[in-house]
Amino acid sequence: MVLPYDDTYFMKKALQEAEYAFEAGEVPVGAVIVVQDRIIARAHNLTEKLNDVTAHAEMQAITSAANFLGGKYLKDCTLYVTLEPCQMCAGALYWSQIGKIVYGATDEQRGCGVMGTTLHPKTKISGGILADEATSLLLQFFAKKRK
Amino acid sequence: MVLPYDDTYFMKKALQEAEYAFEAGEVPVGAVIVVQDRIIARAHNLTEKLNDVTAHAEMQAITSAANFLGGKYLKDCTLYVTLEPCQMCAGALYWSQIGKIVYGATDEQRGCGVMGTTLHPKTKISGGILADEATSLLLQFFAKKRK
Repeated sequence: MVLPYDDTYFMKKALQEAEYAFEAGEVPVGAVIVVQDRIIARAHNLTEKLNDVTAHAEMQAITSAANFLGGKYLKDCTLYVTLEPCQMCAGALYWSQIGKIVYGATDEQRGCGVMGTTLHPKTKISGGILADEATSLLLQFFAKKRK
Repeated sequence: MVLPYDDTYFMKKALQEAEYAFEAGEVPVGAVIVVQDRIIARAHNLTEKLNDVTAHAEMQAITSAANFLGGKYLKDCTLYVTLEPCQMCAGALYWSQIGKIVYGATDEQRGCGVMGTTLHPKTKISGGILADEATSLLLQFFAKKRK
């Protein structure tokens, strides 16, 4: 039996968002927020277009999910994001009390793990889902930028 | 000689923003961003009204200042905020490369100091400006909420 709605399924949707960012000349990071196997928010990094350091994929997804739910807490939600959240995004996720964070590639420079950002005690976190695909897209982006 | 534009002058403007938040039933935190003695952004906490955990005063001020300047980096700017920034806001300030952060009251539970959030190496930070006024407004707010 194949479960259609697993972590890989939703991370593919986040990767699709990252690809939209790539095409738009943005650092390619994408995110979706899921509740009961339903995607309620999709976003990708828009820091260049919006000229705003706060426009990370996760930040927009949090705002969008809260808007959809009509409440600012995301306790029953899972965030899928192609790159490990930074301090800002992990700090926002702390306030949202999100149920679970699943990320793709680890950010060894600026990820919340290495930075020691505190998550909400009820938030679970795991990484490594489609990490190679997420990393490959980021490497392609930075290689293109250097040309 | 009296210098009109000192830290106290600008923190009073941030406190005015915190008072607007108080009147609107929001946790009373206010912020202004200043460049060359000119206020280019004013904001107060709007998490309840916007139903969004990311709507802290500092986050809105960062977005607003970048919009005003037409560039997303705030290297020559100073943020005045009535309460020490949290992880999310300090993380956003890291990305903005802001020149200086001046806060009022210390947040001993969730401030970036106790949380160990990393600031940009070029960002200076100091606190304690009109701290009693900022704390008094917060205590009034929570006392009123408990009633």
